[in-house]
Amino acid sequence: MSLVTGDDISAAAGRLAGRIVRTPLLSCRRLSDDLGLDVLVKAENLQHAGSFKVRGAQNALLARAERGQLPAGIATFSAGNHAAAAAYAGWVLGLPTVVCMPPGAVDVKVAAVKRYGGEVVFTDDLAGTCHAVAAERGYALLHPFDDLDVIAGAGTVGAELAADAGSLELVLVPVGGGGLISGIAAAVKAVSPATRVVGVEPVTANAVTHGLRHGALVPLPRRPVSLADGLTAPYAGEHTLAHIEAHVDVIVEVPEQVIARAWWELLDATKLLVEPSAAVGLAALRLGLVETVPEARVALVLSGGNVASATLAQIGQN
Amino acid sequence: MSLVTGDDISAAAGRLAGRIVRTPLLSCRRLSDDLGLDVLVKAENLQHAGSFKVRGAQNALLARAERGQLPAGIATFSAGNHAAAAAYAGWVLGLPTVVCMPPGAVDVKVAAVKRYGGEVVFTDDLAGTCHAVAAERGYALLHPFDDLDVIAGAGTVGAELAADAGSLELVLVPVGGGGLISGIAAAVKAVSPATRVVGVEPVTANAVTHGLRHGALVPLPRRPVSLADGLTAPYAGEHTLAHIEAHVDVIVEVPEQVIARAWWELLDATKLLVEPSAAVGLAALRLGLVETVPEARVALVLSGGNVASATLAQIGQN
Repeated sequence: MSLVTGDDISAAAGRLAGRIVRTPLLSCRRLSDDLGLDVLVKAENLQHAGSFKVRGAQNALLARAERGQLPAGIATFSAGNHAAAAAYAGWVLGLPTVVCMPPGAVDVKVAAVKRYGGEVVFTDDLAGTCHAVAAERGYALLHPFDDLDVIAGAGTVGAELAADAGSLELVLVPVGGGGLISGIAAAVKAVSPATRVVGVEPVTANAVTHGLRHGALVPLPRRPVSLADGLTAPYAGEHTLAHIEAHVDVIVEVPEQVIARAWWELLDATKLLVEPSAAVGLAALRLGLVETVPEARVALVLSGGNVASATLAQIGQN
Repeated sequence: MSLVTGDDISAAAGRLAGRIVRTPLLSCRRLSDDLGLDVLVKAENLQHAGSFKVRGAQNALLARAERGQLPAGIATFSAGNHAAAAAYAGWVLGLPTVVCMPPGAVDVKVAAVKRYGGEVVFTDDLAGTCHAVAAERGYALLHPFDDLDVIAGAGTVGAELAADAGSLELVLVPVGGGGLISGIAAAVKAVSPATRVVGVEPVTANAVTHGLRHGALVPLPRRPVSLADGLTAPYAGEHTLAHIEAHVDVIVEVPEQVIARAWWELLDATKLLVEPSAAVGLAALRLGLVETVPEARVALVLSGGNVASATLAQIGQN
């Protein structure tokens, strides 16, 4: 299976220039002092449409256009940030977008699709309905994570991180279906092989750990549910699993309660509103799941900032 | 009365280099679309100790040291962000700091002083007790806003803003005692006289509007109370009023309910946790209190991010 290269990621960065926010890499003294580390955060919550996903969605469409394959429209499926990102990408490129979402999708993520003019189809059979919509309308099907162009787009997060951080001992990346960490690991290892890239999944939504044991595309035995709703992919992709096997040092799992505490701590210490998915890296550090030497330079990828109203309402109660 | 110049602010920037976060100036597409403007936010909530105040406090101590006047310790008074900032400045420069705070000071601001090793003295007579402490211990008294070095330090926010924004039509600045806007107006007008600098006060905490009518240091008839707790200075300073009269285009006032809504909107649209004080600029735009032409480039100064727990608990209920 072919893997995304540093050159692919550079090409993606070229396509995305001016179309994405080059998000800041911020040093957090409070977290650094508390953890005895040098903690940086990559603030993808400040990205257009509120998450890193606009990088992959736009790169996928722009790369297809370069190959003479720009479709008449986009059909995609997602319960989360990819939904808004695909609608955003369609909107800026003038393509109609249909997003298949589960009936229980959180309010802000549905509203975000509509904000960018996307059409929402609620369905329990996300992939099946999406294939049907694509066939019926002659639209291209865009997979939310298991696509080499989507992975290369996500990789631009890693390229920016590596360029801005200087020497870096460790990067902690939230893991759902594996698209973000596939891109980041490819980018970071291309320029700094000694930097450890560690993925973090919720215990209750561990599709990649499951995939590493049972194979790509094998669904989890139970529907994943987590406060980190952005990480509840039902299976790991073929492409993503190949990238993870090639480049990622280890995947660790964190329980719900620790995610909630880490999320609160991030808000309080960094003044950044992130979604719970973005807090799994800090949760892993807090649990001591990742070995670090004192004062090591560690980057947390804050993948997005789209918080459901119901989740936000819990903030004050913590 | 002498005014801070562009050179004073450049000197302050030199002293502060490496001691402050050069906070990002972020473009917000969501607010821009909603308001029909080109909205930028200067994210001083990401500053050390959570607000712009560390600029003034550190500049004041460093400038005194340059003049051979570094004190044995610092005595200051504040209910808010200056408290933590003074403690922070004392901590990094190795000086003991005493902060006089009112008995009702919000929890996070008291905790922040202690975090940086500051001593808190609770008192209803802030200035009186502070003078007594300073005299007794031989410490220097540092005024929270009515000090030329504090104003020059705050001015570095404006200098960075002007440098990063390029052409700018309007800057909206939260106003308490007037230190921040004094510095920002001096900095911005020095390089871009056509840029309008507008101050925004809560209706219920309008010390500068009151001072412009009745004179500097004349206290408000009632103790100011606002959700924007960082803006509840009881009077405008002599130095700050002189700067405001020289450089600021207009001061407008916003009611509490609109501040609350604007604060929520900022969190949702920018993914930045700011304190309610930082939301008054958006509140003024929402109320139409400031004339703007369509697509005008407007900067909102987000002065800080230190939100009281009780205030944060209200978030989910909005």
